[in-house]
Amino acid sequence: MVLLRDTQKRIKGSRVFLIGPLKIGNKKEIPGGILDHSKIIGKSVRDIVKTNKDKSYTIHFPTLDEYVVMIPRLMTPIYPKDANTIVALLDLHPYSRIMEAGTGNGSLTLYLARSLYPTGHLHSIDINRDASVKARENVTRFSRGIYSNCISFSIGQCSKVLDSMDITPSIYDGVALDMPEPWNELPSIVQRLKIDRYIVCYLPNMTQVLELIKQIKYYKIALATEQVLEIQWRPWDVRATVIRDRMGDESFSVKQLTLNDEIPNQALGHICRPSHEPTGHTAFLVQLKKIVHT
Amino acid sequence: MVLLRDTQKRIKGSRVFLIGPLKIGNKKEIPGGILDHSKIIGKSVRDIVKTNKDKSYTIHFPTLDEYVVMIPRLMTPIYPKDANTIVALLDLHPYSRIMEAGTGNGSLTLYLARSLYPTGHLHSIDINRDASVKARENVTRFSRGIYSNCISFSIGQCSKVLDSMDITPSIYDGVALDMPEPWNELPSIVQRLKIDRYIVCYLPNMTQVLELIKQIKYYKIALATEQVLEIQWRPWDVRATVIRDRMGDESFSVKQLTLNDEIPNQALGHICRPSHEPTGHTAFLVQLKKIVHT
Amino acid sequence: MVLLRDTQKRIKGSRVFLIGPLKIGNKKEIPGGILDHSKIIGKSVRDIVKTNKDKSYTIHFPTLDEYVVMIPRLMTPIYPKDANTIVALLDLHPYSRIMEAGTGNGSLTLYLARSLYPTGHLHSIDINRDASVKARENVTRFSRGIYSNCISFSIGQCSKVLDSMDITPSIYDGVALDMPEPWNELPSIVQRLKIDRYIVCYLPNMTQVLELIKQIKYYKIALATEQVLEIQWRPWDVRATVIRDRMGDESFSVKQLTLNDEIPNQALGHICRPSHEPTGHTAFLVQLKKIVHT
Amino acid sequence: MVLLRDTQKRIKGSRVFLIGPLKIGNKKEIPGGILDHSKIIGKSVRDIVKTNKDKSYTIHFPTLDEYVVMIPRLMTPIYPKDANTIVALLDLHPYSRIMEAGTGNGSLTLYLARSLYPTGHLHSIDINRDASVKARENVTRFSRGIYSNCISFSIGQCSKVLDSMDITPSIYDGVALDMPEPWNELPSIVQRLKIDRYIVCYLPNMTQVLELIKQIKYYKIALATEQVLEIQWRPWDVRATVIRDRMGDESFSVKQLTLNDEIPNQALGHICRPSHEPTGHTAFLVQLKKIVHT
Repeated sequence: MVLLRDTQKRIKGSRVFLIGPLKIGNKKEIPGGILDHSKIIGKSVRDIVKTNKDKSYTIHFPTLDEYVVMIPRLMTPIYPKDANTIVALLDLHPYSRIMEAGTGNGSLTLYLARSLYPTGHLHSIDINRDASVKARENVTRFSRGIYSNCISFSIGQCSKVLDSMDITPSIYDGVALDMPEPWNELPSIVQRLKIDRYIVCYLPNMTQVLELIKQIKYYKIALATEQVLEIQWRPWDVRATVIRDRMGDESFSVKQLTLNDEIPNQALGHICRPSHEPTGHTAFLVQLKKIVHT
Repeated sequence: MVLLRDTQKRIKGSRVFLIGPLKIGNKKEIPGGILDHSKIIGKSVRDIVKTNKDKSYTIHFPTLDEYVVMIPRLMTPIYPKDANTIVALLDLHPYSRIMEAGTGNGSLTLYLARSLYPTGHLHSIDINRDASVKARENVTRFSRGIYSNCISFSIGQCSKVLDSMDITPSIYDGVALDMPEPWNELPSIVQRLKIDRYIVCYLPNMTQVLELIKQIKYYKIALATEQVLEIQWRPWDVRATVIRDRMGDESFSVKQLTLNDEIPNQALGHICRPSHEPTGHTAFLVQLKKIVHT
Repeated sequence: MVLLRDTQKRIKGSRVFLIGPLKIGNKKEIPGGILDHSKIIGKSVRDIVKTNKDKSYTIHFPTLDEYVVMIPRLMTPIYPKDANTIVALLDLHPYSRIMEAGTGNGSLTLYLARSLYPTGHLHSIDINRDASVKARENVTRFSRGIYSNCISFSIGQCSKVLDSMDITPSIYDGVALDMPEPWNELPSIVQRLKIDRYIVCYLPNMTQVLELIKQIKYYKIALATEQVLEIQWRPWDVRATVIRDRMGDESFSVKQLTLNDEIPNQALGHICRPSHEPTGHTAFLVQLKKIVHT
Repeated sequence: MVLLRDTQKRIKGSRVFLIGPLKIGNKKEIPGGILDHSKIIGKSVRDIVKTNKDKSYTIHFPTLDEYVVMIPRLMTPIYPKDANTIVALLDLHPYSRIMEAGTGNGSLTLYLARSLYPTGHLHSIDINRDASVKARENVTRFSRGIYSNCISFSIGQCSKVLDSMDITPSIYDGVALDMPEPWNELPSIVQRLKIDRYIVCYLPNMTQVLELIKQIKYYKIALATEQVLEIQWRPWDVRATVIRDRMGDESFSVKQLTLNDEIPNQALGHICRPSHEPTGHTAFLVQLKKIVHT
């Protein structure tokens, strides 16, 4: 998979999208014409490719954040703001051995694997076969499958998969759970988690957070609630702009202004405000810590 | 360094603090008496130690987030919410070779090193000798210095240190800058950064962000502004509580209620609200990407 | 102007819109057919009207918040969250005499007038004739023009209008400014503001806030900055929902579920999260207080 | 009650506090000495008074926001950000007749009364006699009791007070509720509320919001949930500052710098960031609308 970026740099940001996996003979219709995959194969990063209508794009490798947001999806991914924080809350080390359920579309899977690479291991479980297969594909396609070797995938209900594996108690250094009712799986998971290590749950609704806290207390599960967090990455627009009233030249079109054009000094101003399109709510993150009941 | 946690678990959370480096003969006055280091040395995680007044604490290893927030400081550290996001925005791989300036108290240093361990490398520069020495100490004391081998420290002005090193152009996969006026160092830094890779600046004031954007444009530095972000980890209080009006027993003291006490069912309620002590503003993060000027 | 609300109450909220001013012979195409104004005229609030295709709506009076958000617009209005706060920051009394510039589409005008009615007075100035005329119309159409008598409109540049009026110095109890460069008008405005009273500026960009603060200091204008605020009304979705997995009846369609349908107990859950469509950034509010230079 | 402001204007803002009610013979110890009330009585706004140690203060009238935040309190007040929004969500007109329960310390009472003055009326009920008496005092002391005539106070449980009054059904144009379990009072309140008009509940916990929504649905109370909001007034620090490194004069003390001092141009910078002391969470506001069940 490579990322294509429109070479025509506009003030409001260029168009970007993913293309791939690359295969000779394949074509893709993109804004500005049709692009043969074969025109990309063999090229280097930052080379320029052109559509059949001569629209040009530069080739890039996507970052993990870009990849996860842009890949075609079966379901809503866990976005970078949350995926990066889940990794942080698990306090992972490159030698950690961890578990996640469910796999979903493999977004969080990639973030977790990156933090473990090359010496740790992630066991990723999903009850849904289609999701697991698609996630495996997404993992394989990122950065030539660099993280594939750190991950093993299972299909089935989390606690059943764990019971079937006959694994040592307290084997995991961390667990990430993205499922509507994680409390049902907790007893089975907790006995495989090391003491003092963390489970992080991704829960869209506060009612789910409450139910989780209540179930842990009611069933005396050996977990302490460390933090309940809502993560916001608040984007700002900060960039040069033209103050139209001061241009003095009616023929000047702001819309056609490109990044390389010079804005005359007397008309130079700066946009500087929180973005008009903020990120909406995604989920609450609940960090739980395994304790010893006394 | 180990973390001690008050064994008396109260509803509002137990007292925790760091102690160390441990040395036979040393003592520390803590809430509830004096504690000899020798009582901790040789103990295991989750063992219990007691002060001379019989107050007991359990022993833990601090997470990186706990360590960075609790170590005695010469200056304000970069907090976990920002440090973790800077690592994310740099899109690091375990083979990355990166640079940071200034080192500060070594908080971000540890986060960067963790993401590179064991195969990458971080070059950390600070103009202030005391800060650099103290940061080195903080790095060495965390988790028995596990990340020390991934980091080399330099003292001096960033651009002068770089010039003196006669390093290959475009060697760095990423750069993190925590200094009041990063624009002065950019020309020297940019030529050592790989194309398409990122610089992330940590800037408390929006006036600094504006100045950065203006200087890049004015001096035609080969950087594009990818994102300006403000990071919030908004904490919630979600926990069981006693609804006093419903206790029916005046002698019951809520303040003395511990986590292990049973709250009678008719008086069980739940606190569920954003924390009254929110995290204040720390800084804006500016993600810059090296481009090729056309 | 009346507000029509779809009688079919859906879980996600009913469709609502404004219609008017009502005139016999006029028709309007709305979702579900064509509606003759004459069907509304003479009806009471909460009566039901039907389109030519038998789709029914109930009649309501719009609140001021609903009116301001739903009226057809020449420009972006000042939204309720900001308009209500500007009124609050001006600390108005029903006897206050205040000024606003520019009038815009008359959104803030209505909020200011409501807080002054019936004994205070608002002078509303706009440099743009079309805007001023349209705003006057919007004011007249709200609640049968109840607030019209409290407002006088002027067209022209703010300071020129003030100079032409030969008004007593220090006449105003408050001033609201919605213009890109309010600093140009401040010297003229400040001498007409009472000491210890407030000017509130509505400024979309932080660069404008900075310029305002700099100009006041540089030209020694007799104003102190009291507060710079960003106002957020963060909406939550809290409502009953169906947990589909637990319905046990495939024929049940969640989309067709209306508010009056009973959700079977075993499938009843609750959505409880910040809304997915948050309000974006609008502007910063700067509260300035007239002081005496010593 | 008057507000005293330290005449020594510092960059970080002057000290302010309330003093009163003024009475000949009374004294108050304030920072900088003891002040006789008799020195203030007879003075005008902006006059200067001095303590026995010659520390000088200027006299001001407090705004409603200042008054409510600074008066000595029996309990946490409803802060300006919420009080102003509750008034906004009730969509009040100067002829409105409304009800609030509980009165608390009279903070919201004053905001409601201001929006009704001089032609509307507020009925304020509290179950706690001490609170009601203190609130009445706070209302009387603000701005010489200007709003007292718009308010009648009752002591008792809300529904019992209403039942005892033999008032016409559907008399209220709006209701504000600040109590832990408002659902218990709703049936009694709703029959006295006009159709299409609003109840706004002030609830610190999301668990309370959920319980409210559930009870309305379960008991089929004739209310629709219009909005659940969390209000934030996010304060920014935007002000001139000295960049110490550029002063070039070690003898210059930033701490003693007053607002009237000139900052040399080469050392002039600007603080421009969200305040380090943000407002914490207070409560969620739930806007309910009376509907007709069909």
